Amino acid sequence: ARVKEVVMVGLVTRPSWRDVKPDWRGLKMLPKVLGGSQGDGAILSLAIKELELEGFCVIGIDDVLTDLRTPLGPLGQYHPDSIAQRDIERAIEVGLALGAVDVGQAVVVQHGVVLGVEAVEGTDALLERCLGLCRGGDGGVLLKLKKAYQDSRVDLPTVGPDTVAKASQAGIRGIAIEADASLLVERARLVRDADLAGMFVTGVKVERCLG
Amino acid sequence: ARVKEVVMVGLVTRPSWRDVKPDWRGLKMLPKVLGGSQGDGAILSLAIKELELEGFCVIGIDDVLTDLRTPLGPLGQYHPDSIAQRDIERAIEVGLALGAVDVGQAVVVQHGVVLGVEAVEGTDALLERCLGLCRGGDGGVLLKLKKAYQDSRVDLPTVGPDTVAKASQAGIRGIAIEADASLLVERARLVRDADLAGMFVTGVKVERCLG
Repeated sequence: ARVKEVVMVGLVTRPSWRDVKPDWRGLKMLPKVLGGSQGDGAILSLAIKELELEGFCVIGIDDVLTDLRTPLGPLGQYHPDSIAQRDIERAIEVGLALGAVDVGQAVVVQHGVVLGVEAVEGTDALLERCLGLCRGGDGGVLLKLKKAYQDSRVDLPTVGPDTVAKASQAGIRGIAIEADASLLVERARLVRDADLAGMFVTGVKVERCLG
Repeated sequence: ARVKEVVMVGLVTRPSWRDVKPDWRGLKMLPKVLGGSQGDGAILSLAIKELELEGFCVIGIDDVLTDLRTPLGPLGQYHPDSIAQRDIERAIEVGLALGAVDVGQAVVVQHGVVLGVEAVEGTDALLERCLGLCRGGDGGVLLKLKKAYQDSRVDLPTVGPDTVAKASQAGIRGIAIEADASLLVERARLVRDADLAGMFVTGVKVERCLG
């Protein structure tokens, strides 16, 4: 075959170790997987290395569809006010700590209260439970950011019109998403929906000590 | 009055900043609260300092009821096996990262997968959602641990018979709780219920870089 470049997209549900039924090649990889850190990012990096050993070049979806990349700054007509700005900063602090141990990519903060932190349940489930947890006053802020050590070619945080709809239903007042390290799906519809919902969607710079 | 020592117990639901209606004294405290870190632990520490300025001595509930303190090692007849041990270690890694930013005190890990991480929803809600998230094979492990900078006199992680019941319903195979930095409520009933449910409950040592 003439395939040289590989793009990884879509959903993988991670099984428990006992449910893994590896083939011969998988068996050879297993010691490396079990011996290393157990986060999704670490395991995906091993999968990429394996594809590269086979001669494939693994590239990011945003190398092919460059307009998916999140730019810096507000995308629609609404901007975060000073309270939202402060919630974004607190969310970044929490998100970086979480990402450093290779766990989730999403955090919801409302007026300084960390309403929820994402693990395997995914952003939709996180948003759903935040509806029942939110306090009075303006809604919370959803932040999505890349994990510290994850390979930028796979599993980038993603926001689309569906995220806007779910966030709006959950009483969220705005979405912050890491600029240059995340994907925006159906941007035009996303921005239109956010404007209609009165929500801001903004690309934020996340300062990282490493990489 | 002759009251000298104060013990803080029970539940406080943290409001959003906009819902806070401080009295005169609260108004004077507000700049300190808003100026500092926004985690629960930081705010509770300020409340303790305020009580101390008034001449009260704030002590921990486990200074009064010393048998509440969690000892090291298994409490009932079941012990964590090597997989559970590894899940406990991963949960400690995640819990320490979370506690360092003053967020939750509970983490659920099953076979290396971080099923859930606690924020304001509390341990019961965390356990409930983990039931729908757990993978095949043996269940996950619930870890409860103290946050890095929280004052040991208030808001210690707590496990009781109710935790055992909720964990059992959620398919959890065992509970690890930080030795010497957490509370066991109704220990005899807790151990009996855990034994009946086939669950381990064990006090674990958590190595911390600070304090």
